Amino acid sequence: MTRTIRLTLAYDGTGFRGWARQRDPSIRTIEGAVAANLERVVQEPVKLSVAGRTDAGVHARGQVASFTTASSVAPERLQKALNGALAPELVVVEAAYAPGGFDARFSASAREYGYRIDESALPDPFTARFVWHRPGHLRQGPMREAARLLVGEHDFASFCRRPGGDRSTVRDLRRLTVGRQGDVLTIRAAANAFLHHMVRSLVGTLVAVGEGTLEAAAMPEILDARDREAAGRPAPARGLTLERVQYDIAEVLC
Amino acid sequence: MTRTIRLTLAYDGTGFRGWARQRDPSIRTIEGAVAANLERVVQEPVKLSVAGRTDAGVHARGQVASFTTASSVAPERLQKALNGALAPELVVVEAAYAPGGFDARFSASAREYGYRIDESALPDPFTARFVWHRPGHLRQGPMREAARLLVGEHDFASFCRRPGGDRSTVRDLRRLTVGRQGDVLTIRAAANAFLHHMVRSLVGTLVAVGEGTLEAAAMPEILDARDREAAGRPAPARGLTLERVQYDIAEVLC
Repeated sequence: MTRTIRLTLAYDGTGFRGWARQRDPSIRTIEGAVAANLERVVQEPVKLSVAGRTDAGVHARGQVASFTTASSVAPERLQKALNGALAPELVVVEAAYAPGGFDARFSASAREYGYRIDESALPDPFTARFVWHRPGHLRQGPMREAARLLVGEHDFASFCRRPGGDRSTVRDLRRLTVGRQGDVLTIRAAANAFLHHMVRSLVGTLVAVGEGTLEAAAMPEILDARDREAAGRPAPARGLTLERVQYDIAEVLC
Repeated sequence: MTRTIRLTLAYDGTGFRGWARQRDPSIRTIEGAVAANLERVVQEPVKLSVAGRTDAGVHARGQVASFTTASSVAPERLQKALNGALAPELVVVEAAYAPGGFDARFSASAREYGYRIDESALPDPFTARFVWHRPGHLRQGPMREAARLLVGEHDFASFCRRPGGDRSTVRDLRRLTVGRQGDVLTIRAAANAFLHHMVRSLVGTLVAVGEGTLEAAAMPEILDARDREAAGRPAPARGLTLERVQYDIAEVLC
């Protein structure tokens, strides 16, 4: 009998070279660290499925990963073993059995990311790992107008690092908001799924609008261009956090 | 003509082996990093005076250091050079000329520290560098009662790591408060000056009271014992932050 286990992960991505496990075990990745520690407990190879393949330096509060195993080790024991080895840099917030057929990547119905920009004159050592320090106020009005024009189901090829051959670059961007608290501007993005570098490219484009080097009205053309050169430069990884993943119960049970 | 320059520093102390510069330049310290970069600009040896000699792993938001120099380099240029080399881990928040005779250590009239305890069941990767993760609620009432008994001018030898021979261990503890926001308990301590490990020993003692292994009423005996074994174990460095240093203008001008 095989069981499916679902893990909810939070991590500071600064010290990791992204999600994907590498052949060279000296290259520290989130998947590599999690899988190696799981394998030590379940005593068999573990192949993880993940909701958001975060890039090097990107963080997560509510990342979700899953795997199937023949082992009967209780999820709580796995959680303890992983936290003993990896916390507080990487924390297993929850570990639980999932319904058969659950897959962290394919069962996910939406992902939500947050991007933080520190507009203060000087960086803050207490938040620096989790924000992009970019001094000076950005104009929120035009950024919001641009965001409004980007929301919806579009071909986001202009916001994708490496469109993969014949795979679709159409995504349903359900929410893109801009808000400020103190000197920190937060951009939140939710979609059914995101392309590679998509959030960071959206943020870079909104920042160009906020500093006045790009017009909000140019968004439809940028989408139409389907060319990465048309969009703004991707914002740095450090400001990006995968906040949560949504699962539609109905889909999980199918 | 020599000038006195005052620097206000904020830093994440995690990656530093405390304040004091070491002979071995491969040992990274705050003073070592700041002085080496200052020396590169002013082209002469720099000897720093500092308000709070923070231990390894201790952080600062408003640390103050000063030095005298024959160089006429503007403070703003020093600030830029240091921030270019050391930010965002260590940030020079302010650099300015100080009145002749100003000394960051001897002119200081008070120091204020904050100590943060995360009481959540699981650690949080986003705040972990700046808190002591100690799961479970501590009882604030008895902690406040103990704090009240510790405030005042006392011989704090029981809360000192290495009382230095014939040097006085009397200090004026002006404030010691306990507050909670969400799952984070913050202990704030202000005094004319602190002994080595004094804040961490005060925190460790209050925590013992909060968990019920020590009675608040025992505080006067602990003070009277003048013996480190009488107090609670010092709390870990990572939760401690030097928040600010106070200077009495009159003293500075003397």
